[in-house]
Amino acid sequence: MNAQHSHPAPSPASTPVTVIGLGLMGSALAATLLDRGHPTTVWNRSPQKAKPLADAGAHVAATPEDAVAASGLVLVCVLDYDALHAVLDPLAEAGGLAGKSLVNLTSGAPEQAVEMAAWAGRHGAGYLDGGIMTTPPGVGNPEMMFLYSGSEAVFEAHRPTLATLGDPLYLGAEPGMASLYDSALLGLMWATFTGWLHGTALVTSDGTTAADFTRIALRWLTGAVSGFVTTYAPQVDAGRYPGDDATVDVQITAIDHLIHAAHARGIDNSLPHLLKSTMERTAAAGHGSDSYASVIEALRGPKRR
Amino acid sequence: MNAQHSHPAPSPASTPVTVIGLGLMGSALAATLLDRGHPTTVWNRSPQKAKPLADAGAHVAATPEDAVAASGLVLVCVLDYDALHAVLDPLAEAGGLAGKSLVNLTSGAPEQAVEMAAWAGRHGAGYLDGGIMTTPPGVGNPEMMFLYSGSEAVFEAHRPTLATLGDPLYLGAEPGMASLYDSALLGLMWATFTGWLHGTALVTSDGTTAADFTRIALRWLTGAVSGFVTTYAPQVDAGRYPGDDATVDVQITAIDHLIHAAHARGIDNSLPHLLKSTMERTAAAGHGSDSYASVIEALRGPKRR
Repeated sequence: MNAQHSHPAPSPASTPVTVIGLGLMGSALAATLLDRGHPTTVWNRSPQKAKPLADAGAHVAATPEDAVAASGLVLVCVLDYDALHAVLDPLAEAGGLAGKSLVNLTSGAPEQAVEMAAWAGRHGAGYLDGGIMTTPPGVGNPEMMFLYSGSEAVFEAHRPTLATLGDPLYLGAEPGMASLYDSALLGLMWATFTGWLHGTALVTSDGTTAADFTRIALRWLTGAVSGFVTTYAPQVDAGRYPGDDATVDVQITAIDHLIHAAHARGIDNSLPHLLKSTMERTAAAGHGSDSYASVIEALRGPKRR
Repeated sequence: MNAQHSHPAPSPASTPVTVIGLGLMGSALAATLLDRGHPTTVWNRSPQKAKPLADAGAHVAATPEDAVAASGLVLVCVLDYDALHAVLDPLAEAGGLAGKSLVNLTSGAPEQAVEMAAWAGRHGAGYLDGGIMTTPPGVGNPEMMFLYSGSEAVFEAHRPTLATLGDPLYLGAEPGMASLYDSALLGLMWATFTGWLHGTALVTSDGTTAADFTRIALRWLTGAVSGFVTTYAPQVDAGRYPGDDATVDVQITAIDHLIHAAHARGIDNSLPHLLKSTMERTAAAGHGSDSYASVIEALRGPKRR
């Protein structure tokens, strides 16, 4: 973001890092950094949460000011943006953020990340916003995705350190993008979970185990369903949705079998009914012979269309 | 199902097969069987659909009676169960199904498959119900799943022939199970598609391409999300949902970020609102500190609980 961040990065394992916020996730971040040999300074509002990390070799700062002063790279993972400002505002006003690389892993809306980037810039810090696409036990697993957006200079300077936490993916200079992806991916997760649980409720009511169904469901999800999504993504970008293999109209007919079977088993049908009505709106807008990708036209707001 | 099906199966490529119903899917089935060297007899209500298959070497039967008489193994893939009975009832009444292996790939509800199995039994046919978990272009790909339930004797006798169409999975003697799985898996697919399209609408409104988002979304789906599902399946079977890594209450907080971001971009929020209310019902039932797997308790009917 500015020349203050252009100093050459030291070798990864010797880069000092500060972690502010020691909930389950913040603690996992700090523990992983310690495990990989980083001099790690921690601070938490309730100091007892720092105890296990202190035992593992962390330096426990007495104040946020001391914590930020200890390292050029500062990771913050607190409950929300109110907590974030409560911790950082006083030290920022006193000039304590100048020249720091601030990596904000606090969950929030994209607009909050954009404001935070501007705020950090005013206080002389380079700003990277992050979304952690795993649970605390997944931190340190190189397969897990950590999404970042904001200062490319901060990302590049600290990529080796960030890579100890998971696979760091840079989504561009727009600070809100990591948060936007985070929300979009969680939405996909909740929809998938709920569809899977609805199907599990259906088959387990006829005596199958969830484990048996799930083996087949995961093969379906990671095989055919992922294949369809791969086919549909360029259709969305092109705004043309050829229904070569399966049309919205065909899916509308098929979902009635699901609704019927679930109803007969006393299972809540809110999700299938919503999916059907979304398909019906899509068909009514002229996409009945198009692929399921055309459903995006029914989801997008009037501003876009 | 009975002794009439216990004759030794001929070598797969020489097994004669009849395919009744030549829509996109039936035509794909017949074309694949021909391609693998099976003597294939076809019949369709509108005979012109048989032309490409006749050119590829299929025997085109003049009547359903002739079609069924030509092979011990009869695959039927027509529009619905009304069409199925319209085609099969007259020849069954005349004894034409006696000793045949009837594999019904027509889409329908599990209860229809159960009735059809009883009907086939009354007419002396072995009955296998099937669900094709791919689109017509996927027929013949050994990665694609074909689900079967009903007569194990029919399945085992014809497994090599069925394996030319895709990977045949036998789900047990209950004839409705393949149809139930089919509906459950399609429900998972539609939920996943719609969650993916909602997320795609979100990020594309800020300038990302669907292709860029989808690369990350598929990695998320096939990695972390599949991992969570694998963890949750045995929780469902045990009826205990320890929220070690992510609780329903935490997800309820997080979905507000999605709702906020989508609302700000004019995107339809019906799906996130439904997911949130389902989580809230789950939490209200005492599962706020449990994992997302506990949402199944809010989906299952009162009969089950």
